Amino acid sequence: MVDKKLGGAGLRGQSAGETALCTVGMSGTGLTYRGYDITDLAQHSTYEEIAYLLLYDKLPNTTELVDFKHRILASTNLPKELLQTLELLPPTTHPMDVLRTGISLLGNFEPETDFSQQDYNAERLLGACPSIVNYWYNYSHNNRRTDVSSPARSLAEHFLRTLHRFEPDALHARVIDVSLILYAEHEFNASTFTARVCASTLSDFHSCMTAAIGSLRGPLHGGANEAAMAMLERFDSPEHAVQQVKQMLARKELIMGFGHAVYREFDPRNEIIKEWAKKLANHDGDTSWFELACAVEQTMKEEKKLFANADFFHAPAYRYMGIPTKLFTPIFVCSRVAGWAAHVKEQRSNNRIIRPSATYVGSDPRPYIALEDR
Amino acid sequence: MVDKKLGGAGLRGQSAGETALCTVGMSGTGLTYRGYDITDLAQHSTYEEIAYLLLYDKLPNTTELVDFKHRILASTNLPKELLQTLELLPPTTHPMDVLRTGISLLGNFEPETDFSQQDYNAERLLGACPSIVNYWYNYSHNNRRTDVSSPARSLAEHFLRTLHRFEPDALHARVIDVSLILYAEHEFNASTFTARVCASTLSDFHSCMTAAIGSLRGPLHGGANEAAMAMLERFDSPEHAVQQVKQMLARKELIMGFGHAVYREFDPRNEIIKEWAKKLANHDGDTSWFELACAVEQTMKEEKKLFANADFFHAPAYRYMGIPTKLFTPIFVCSRVAGWAAHVKEQRSNNRIIRPSATYVGSDPRPYIALEDR
Repeated sequence: MVDKKLGGAGLRGQSAGETALCTVGMSGTGLTYRGYDITDLAQHSTYEEIAYLLLYDKLPNTTELVDFKHRILASTNLPKELLQTLELLPPTTHPMDVLRTGISLLGNFEPETDFSQQDYNAERLLGACPSIVNYWYNYSHNNRRTDVSSPARSLAEHFLRTLHRFEPDALHARVIDVSLILYAEHEFNASTFTARVCASTLSDFHSCMTAAIGSLRGPLHGGANEAAMAMLERFDSPEHAVQQVKQMLARKELIMGFGHAVYREFDPRNEIIKEWAKKLANHDGDTSWFELACAVEQTMKEEKKLFANADFFHAPAYRYMGIPTKLFTPIFVCSRVAGWAAHVKEQRSNNRIIRPSATYVGSDPRPYIALEDR
Repeated sequence: MVDKKLGGAGLRGQSAGETALCTVGMSGTGLTYRGYDITDLAQHSTYEEIAYLLLYDKLPNTTELVDFKHRILASTNLPKELLQTLELLPPTTHPMDVLRTGISLLGNFEPETDFSQQDYNAERLLGACPSIVNYWYNYSHNNRRTDVSSPARSLAEHFLRTLHRFEPDALHARVIDVSLILYAEHEFNASTFTARVCASTLSDFHSCMTAAIGSLRGPLHGGANEAAMAMLERFDSPEHAVQQVKQMLARKELIMGFGHAVYREFDPRNEIIKEWAKKLANHDGDTSWFELACAVEQTMKEEKKLFANADFFHAPAYRYMGIPTKLFTPIFVCSRVAGWAAHVKEQRSNNRIIRPSATYVGSDPRPYIALEDR
């Protein structure tokens, strides 16, 4: 049944379908959402505009944006049964397991029974994701029940407020907003492709999102910014960082946050988040995390000609905002849920079940051997 | 970045990787697990042998089989927090949402922290899946707490006993056993492919299983036997069934349980389950469900030259055993979890992240427009 063997393992460089959502490495600075360059979007827009653009294929006008923000910011509350379950999860739980379970459970109480509900579900999850992760985090780590229904002016503020439980600094809210923009969408990456395969069986929205979270949890996909932070924490000074990175390279250790599967010369998101990380450093007064990161970036460039990708300077940026390292990948989810949802809508709009074949490398046909003869 | 555009939508007929687990439509009667023909396996073996074969690449000898059965049948109990959460789920919940959430939640309490635990996790889920679905079913529908730890001699018996709460009929236990064999594995179907994409990010075992359940939930994948049962319930007699099916065909309505994406002439699993459905009918005394199904099969053959697939005679078979229709697809999960687990192991053993490209069909690069100018 196999017509053609694909060249690259992992379907590398093979088109697995059509999308109008995103180009990676094709034009402009290398990343466009529905034709708009990521640099323009990160500079001028807000995450809610981006989520709207991805979901509804246009930049919203003022009325549309106000209505959209109203809907998603009214969607942050969680069913009491979900809160009860989150309270059962110990602090040692992997935060991505919490999110995967939380979204799956939400689908039990608010199932998508008809695809006409998909926009509602997408907007609901935009509001619910930060609530789930931060409610669990504060309950399990600080023994505090967080009011996840409190009004905020943006999802970025909602995230920071439900995490820290105080009014967020304006610069911090803007950096989270930019971070959400940068992570919102990235074509047929593994988690998005997972969501599309799931959607192609015409399964429900929560199944698709749950599946995608499971894929993003893998260390080859999400988590590079967490690994980068863990590395930076081991360095005492820029000089120490340079020395240590060189030793790691000599030992052929993998240094996370550098290079990219698709981008070849640079990741357009890096310059953007690096600039914001610098502002955060100056705002904080202690610029050491930023300087450590710059030292590593420079060393990787000189030693390996490798560029920092979107994840690397997210590490010091998030750190300056007091975000626990284990919540870095959940923020990725809070953002990417917009891209996943847009891909699910797109898959449904022109669907064929994604059912490839396999190249068989197993045993030839063989006769059964009775249990007593084995 | 796209080197080659694939011919078929949904990766149809395209090899997306290698497997030694299964051939579909290649040799023998059309389905082999690790080289053994499904007809031989269904006749001579038990589901536990099949799960062992898929997971460990050999038919177990007596000692290995006894040990394996001991391990999985000692794995049926569930953490009390999971039971608490299952009790929160209303009877209207989609049973696949229950299973997806139950497995995801189990991953919070028993996370896979190292791939050396993958065999344990696979065996654990073999025991846990029937417990999750039946505990929830009996609690939500009958207000009864089921003892899911009670000893059984096989997973088939465990399933029937935790569902019905009485000692299963020997014929029923054997038919469930055969059913589990037939559904255990089927190459790169959509749910298995979902599990492999998830596994390719090196994510954990529960994420992969959760993702696969989400895909199997889709009506283009699982659920055909449920749809077949719903249809049979609308028929009063074989004559009525023939008349109604002809009318459905005239209205171009889809009749579930016929034809197959890969098999062209017949589904080797159909003859097997049909024979068991007949035995169940005779055992029951009321043969009407079986006769209705035969009438539909004959009509589909005469009118559309379409053959019944594995799902169709599962409908009367399960019905004769008193299994609620909504639990048909969850039984599929209880079986296929062996195949999914074996594919996850195989993916991990020779991994490259599954990250295809996409064909871009969206807007050309365009300038950002300020909010006030939209």
